[in-house]
Amino acid sequence: MLVLLFAMLGPVAGDGSRATGDLGVVIERAAGSILVVEHSHDTRLHEIEGLGDLSHASVVFSRDARYAFVFGRDGGLTKVDLLSARVVKRIVQSGNSIGGAISQDGKLVAVSNYEPGGVRVFDSQTLAPVADIRADYGGAQPSKVVGLVDAPGKRFVFSLYDADQIWIADFSAGDEPSITRFSDVGHLPYDALITPDGRHYVAGLFGEDHLALLDLWHPQRGVHPILDGYSRREARLPVYKMPHLEGWAVAGGKAFVPAVGQHKVLVVDTGSWKTLAEIEVHGQPVFVMARPDGRQLWVNYAYPDNDTVQVIDAESYAIVRTLKPGKAVLHMEFTPRGEKIWLSVRDDNRIQVYDTATLKLLRELPADKPSGIFFTSRAHRIGL
Amino acid sequence: MLVLLFAMLGPVAGDGSRATGDLGVVIERAAGSILVVEHSHDTRLHEIEGLGDLSHASVVFSRDARYAFVFGRDGGLTKVDLLSARVVKRIVQSGNSIGGAISQDGKLVAVSNYEPGGVRVFDSQTLAPVADIRADYGGAQPSKVVGLVDAPGKRFVFSLYDADQIWIADFSAGDEPSITRFSDVGHLPYDALITPDGRHYVAGLFGEDHLALLDLWHPQRGVHPILDGYSRREARLPVYKMPHLEGWAVAGGKAFVPAVGQHKVLVVDTGSWKTLAEIEVHGQPVFVMARPDGRQLWVNYAYPDNDTVQVIDAESYAIVRTLKPGKAVLHMEFTPRGEKIWLSVRDDNRIQVYDTATLKLLRELPADKPSGIFFTSRAHRIGL
Repeated sequence: MLVLLFAMLGPVAGDGSRATGDLGVVIERAAGSILVVEHSHDTRLHEIEGLGDLSHASVVFSRDARYAFVFGRDGGLTKVDLLSARVVKRIVQSGNSIGGAISQDGKLVAVSNYEPGGVRVFDSQTLAPVADIRADYGGAQPSKVVGLVDAPGKRFVFSLYDADQIWIADFSAGDEPSITRFSDVGHLPYDALITPDGRHYVAGLFGEDHLALLDLWHPQRGVHPILDGYSRREARLPVYKMPHLEGWAVAGGKAFVPAVGQHKVLVVDTGSWKTLAEIEVHGQPVFVMARPDGRQLWVNYAYPDNDTVQVIDAESYAIVRTLKPGKAVLHMEFTPRGEKIWLSVRDDNRIQVYDTATLKLLRELPADKPSGIFFTSRAHRIGL
Repeated sequence: MLVLLFAMLGPVAGDGSRATGDLGVVIERAAGSILVVEHSHDTRLHEIEGLGDLSHASVVFSRDARYAFVFGRDGGLTKVDLLSARVVKRIVQSGNSIGGAISQDGKLVAVSNYEPGGVRVFDSQTLAPVADIRADYGGAQPSKVVGLVDAPGKRFVFSLYDADQIWIADFSAGDEPSITRFSDVGHLPYDALITPDGRHYVAGLFGEDHLALLDLWHPQRGVHPILDGYSRREARLPVYKMPHLEGWAVAGGKAFVPAVGQHKVLVVDTGSWKTLAEIEVHGQPVFVMARPDGRQLWVNYAYPDNDTVQVIDAESYAIVRTLKPGKAVLHMEFTPRGEKIWLSVRDDNRIQVYDTATLKLLRELPADKPSGIFFTSRAHRIGL
């Protein structure tokens, strides 16, 4: 009977012995697996396999911080229970997708698709289909969709790559969304971000020199160009990697923006959307992450400088430290109140954890070609 | 055997069947009890009794969002496990206290005391004493301490009511804090706040017309007066309740500040700390809370207007709606991404939940003289 009891209590205890506020997910991109981790003691808890093609994967969390929704490149959408370390459900909802989002109330999960285009929306409980937003614009096929984010008011905002459009899908009245379309926003929107307050949507444009800005407090004012010269400004260097726009840091009324093809971080005023300063850095920046208190910026770089991370003082713009974590630093994630940062060092197969005050390495964890790191505190943030 | 199994599984299942990202605590001030609640479905989960004098109680959370630390007026510090709904430990650490904080890394819990004064610091795991910061200043007794907050860099900041001082206690090097003292900050500091980025500490002063500002990015620059005329500005009305400084909302580079003794909310520029505008409101404001996206302000009022809540557009400063939730609205708490707000209506013995987009009442929950409402997402915020 004791054996039986332990057998029965085992999984229950496994389900129940911990809370979820300090959990996270690390993508192991080559193996198609994820690590469930925790950042109170900086340990690995579980490894979960069978999530498909996780190159360029991203993750959002349920509002109770229990479930991770993992978006794979192959159109896979996998719901993982972080407490039991089990895949709850997995669907392949398209042939090729990039990026997803969860609605403000946590009830809807949306995925933006390259192939066949459009946005598909699912019930976050069951992954049952709720809405299929066809990105029809008069072309031969629906448009590829990129730059999908959630916004306050149970809205999703996204860009139509082939159609030069930005759409707002508003689910506040029910499962049949109200769609607002903005056309001629600029040629070939390829990615986008939303500011942490959920107000400003900024799309990058392959075919333009500027970016496109939509003020979601005043959508009737339309989409406007900002940062003219951003995309090609003095572009004397080959562009090794187009920086993700999610790589912007927004803190203290400023956006810190990776320049394209240059060894610079741009400082932009988020009131006027004008450039205030340019910070000379070690390579072509990919992600510029602001520590949660806004005092520090951590920057990683494109090949061949992707062994380096720099720490910048967000007030003086001075380089505080140049770190060499290892080969191919792909992503960075701060703990929620910013006392630590986790780095994924892909080609050295490890995660590093630093103290952000002393800049000392605290710990290393093994991981199989790690890329994205996502902590559950994102569940409580707009646009993440 | 089935009976035995159920008996054993019961509490384990109770421990384990849920996550902690959507939990919260409601103070039942008269009964000395708390409710454990959840805001995904807006329900009560548990009631826990025996927490002592909870008039003016406040709560902070462990970094995994599992444990609540409840600070009572009687010097009681109670650690509650939200999953098992049990008191893990309770100590009475002083004779009379007001307010507490948890360190950036979650390891230390600090309490500020009226009687015998000073700040006591405890291990968050065990509640074992770690440090006893005597607020000695040359008076007959240690000073009463108020306005205790956490700040980045494992610091606590607080004000000495009797000594006209502000102190920073820095625990980054270990359990023996390094103390920085600022004297002559202004007469009788009675409360304080820290901005959401953890940079600016603002103390209210009973004996002055202005407030005191400390920039924690540059403590060597000292404490400076701001908002001259704040405390007595046109004070023609009797002050029914001194607004808590924690009642300030900071969003989009502006602080929205309850005026003292007037029917006004002040709009202050957080760069220059000058007043930009004054918003005429229904009564003497107590709390001015910004919705997480910064678009709305919700304001409650002192007696005799404490049956009213107003919703203000944070951009145009227009009053969007005047609500009458019931008798004695004491506190308000937004869900983390702002789609809902919970209000405590003390004298009607209920909690109300509103949709912040439609401003419609979604639900009411019974509660015994509810006051403060605290959701676990505070675990991941600086200064809360």
